[in-house]
Amino acid sequence: MRVYNFAAGPSTLPLEALEKAQAEFLDFAGTGMSVTEISHRDKAYETVVRQAESLVRELLNVPEDYAVIFVQGGASTQFAAVPLNLMRGGKADYIVTGNFAKKAWQEGQLYGEAVKIGDSSDKTYTYIPDLDKLKYSEGADYLHITSNNTIFGSRYAEFPKCAAPLVADMSSEIFSREINVSDFGVIYAGAQKNLAPAGVTIVIAKRSLIQDPLKICPTMLRWKVQDENGSLYNTPPAFSIYMAWLVLQNLKDKGGVKAMQQQNEYKAGLLYDFIDNSKLYKNNVEKKYRSIMNVPFVTGSEELDAKFVAEAKKAGLVSLKGHRIVGGMRASIYNAMPVEGVKALIEFMTKFEKENG
Amino acid sequence: MRVYNFAAGPSTLPLEALEKAQAEFLDFAGTGMSVTEISHRDKAYETVVRQAESLVRELLNVPEDYAVIFVQGGASTQFAAVPLNLMRGGKADYIVTGNFAKKAWQEGQLYGEAVKIGDSSDKTYTYIPDLDKLKYSEGADYLHITSNNTIFGSRYAEFPKCAAPLVADMSSEIFSREINVSDFGVIYAGAQKNLAPAGVTIVIAKRSLIQDPLKICPTMLRWKVQDENGSLYNTPPAFSIYMAWLVLQNLKDKGGVKAMQQQNEYKAGLLYDFIDNSKLYKNNVEKKYRSIMNVPFVTGSEELDAKFVAEAKKAGLVSLKGHRIVGGMRASIYNAMPVEGVKALIEFMTKFEKENG
Repeated sequence: MRVYNFAAGPSTLPLEALEKAQAEFLDFAGTGMSVTEISHRDKAYETVVRQAESLVRELLNVPEDYAVIFVQGGASTQFAAVPLNLMRGGKADYIVTGNFAKKAWQEGQLYGEAVKIGDSSDKTYTYIPDLDKLKYSEGADYLHITSNNTIFGSRYAEFPKCAAPLVADMSSEIFSREINVSDFGVIYAGAQKNLAPAGVTIVIAKRSLIQDPLKICPTMLRWKVQDENGSLYNTPPAFSIYMAWLVLQNLKDKGGVKAMQQQNEYKAGLLYDFIDNSKLYKNNVEKKYRSIMNVPFVTGSEELDAKFVAEAKKAGLVSLKGHRIVGGMRASIYNAMPVEGVKALIEFMTKFEKENG
Repeated sequence: MRVYNFAAGPSTLPLEALEKAQAEFLDFAGTGMSVTEISHRDKAYETVVRQAESLVRELLNVPEDYAVIFVQGGASTQFAAVPLNLMRGGKADYIVTGNFAKKAWQEGQLYGEAVKIGDSSDKTYTYIPDLDKLKYSEGADYLHITSNNTIFGSRYAEFPKCAAPLVADMSSEIFSREINVSDFGVIYAGAQKNLAPAGVTIVIAKRSLIQDPLKICPTMLRWKVQDENGSLYNTPPAFSIYMAWLVLQNLKDKGGVKAMQQQNEYKAGLLYDFIDNSKLYKNNVEKKYRSIMNVPFVTGSEELDAKFVAEAKKAGLVSLKGHRIVGGMRASIYNAMPVEGVKALIEFMTKFEKENG
């Protein structure tokens, strides 16, 4: 029996995409081979990569002068790739609004002066610093942000406007809300939340910015190389790209990013409203900055939190335990989480509150 | 209908492993989730990683003081990781016996003095340089070799013995023949030939060698970090590791590396014998250095080669086209290629020779 999976990543994927992958797992597109076995130089596979790229361009309305590439690994690898591709002047700004934002900033320090110009750790990352009060460094090569904080459940309501190119890690919210790609120099996102199984990261980068990586940048981290080779410089993470292709088709069928944003706001609205009106559960994020992807909440009692997670699992609502850094619960309600899943969670929370409130 | 797939990588995988993955694709181990959806912190998934590691240790008889880790990406990423983890003295030796050996050597030059102490490009990499005549650099941090050359079909019959730690890229032959791990400082292998779908690389490294990576080494390329975290420092390429686990179980069921080596030598023997006795086909690799994984051959006519590839495909023998650098044909006969596949190929070659010889 399939469960409702609230994991933060890897996380639930659209059932239609999984079923298609399963059905053709031994024989992809009439080739007589699994998509995991087919050469990446085979036309049938090249079509997958090209169509996946086209779908990204279409669904996010990516301008022509931006590269769209699929690279190996996760966002953590890109924490190094960002400075290695962009930090030519030796200085960049970072806003630290969560665990991964902090890791990106620390990684930046390996390659130059990584200036922390904003930090919301004083209130355990439950808000985004006031953008109007930030002091951007003169001559910074870029400003790095993490647009949605998976662990703490906060997100940027709007994005910083500064002279340096804006680089955003959108791993836990890409394709969940409409964005204007031309506001960014680089967007990158590990696939394992809204896009595909782990192992691939999508990078969307303004081509003029990525022509001159640092000399010490590993070839495989050079975005320019992957762009020039259509993500096929060497063997790509073929199955993850294939699944991304299926998920993107599914997203298009469901009305694209705009429709998905509406559904995500509806789902998150249901859950936040319920929490705010409950006497047992609490979400500590400032309302303006609440994520529509990751909803952390606590009962105020660690014992009760543990009981909640265990009983929810028995009810088919799994992976609700909060990240080990914050404890409590967290419901990740990515694109692939149906409204019914959120309603089932609220129903369970209601019952649990009655029994334990 | 399943075909016989002679692709060099991604390449054919054991049908039993594919069928198991397909059967449980929507519900892994009774979790109600696909293995592509499950959190890497879930016990059910941690078990996969730990068992996959154990199987590598068991099947290759890996000494206790060696790390066995699964890292993101392919061998090309490790071309940078090798110097970034090991080149503390700023100098390393490389033997260039093929396309990927050359790429590894070129990548090494980004981080220090990469000395080419051997080179077989004068005869299009159809042999391995005489190991007794090599001049190893004094104080080299390591000696890098590519043990099997996927494109040119040559391989080391025995391995160099030198003062510096031996680092071997075994992507296209790991688990195909018995090795003595303690002869090596580091072994690495991209999965997509004998192990799993693309997206993961296995690294086997003597722990004492990997404690002090260069300061500029990206965190995600630090073998020490992955070793300390049991390959779960961050989200791993979960599906590829899962498939590796299935393939390794299958390998164990079939008698392990020793049995596999016997079968591989038998398969390769059949094919080389046929080629050597034919009037139409030719393999140019020195007999002593012939790969038992990748068997390139030519007819001597480009037109006939193209006809061969096209007609073979119609007969259900696919991906036989040689690499674009060398042309002709190449039959990659990895662990998962059954004896019947090689026999079917020989049967087709016989018929084709009669019709076109």
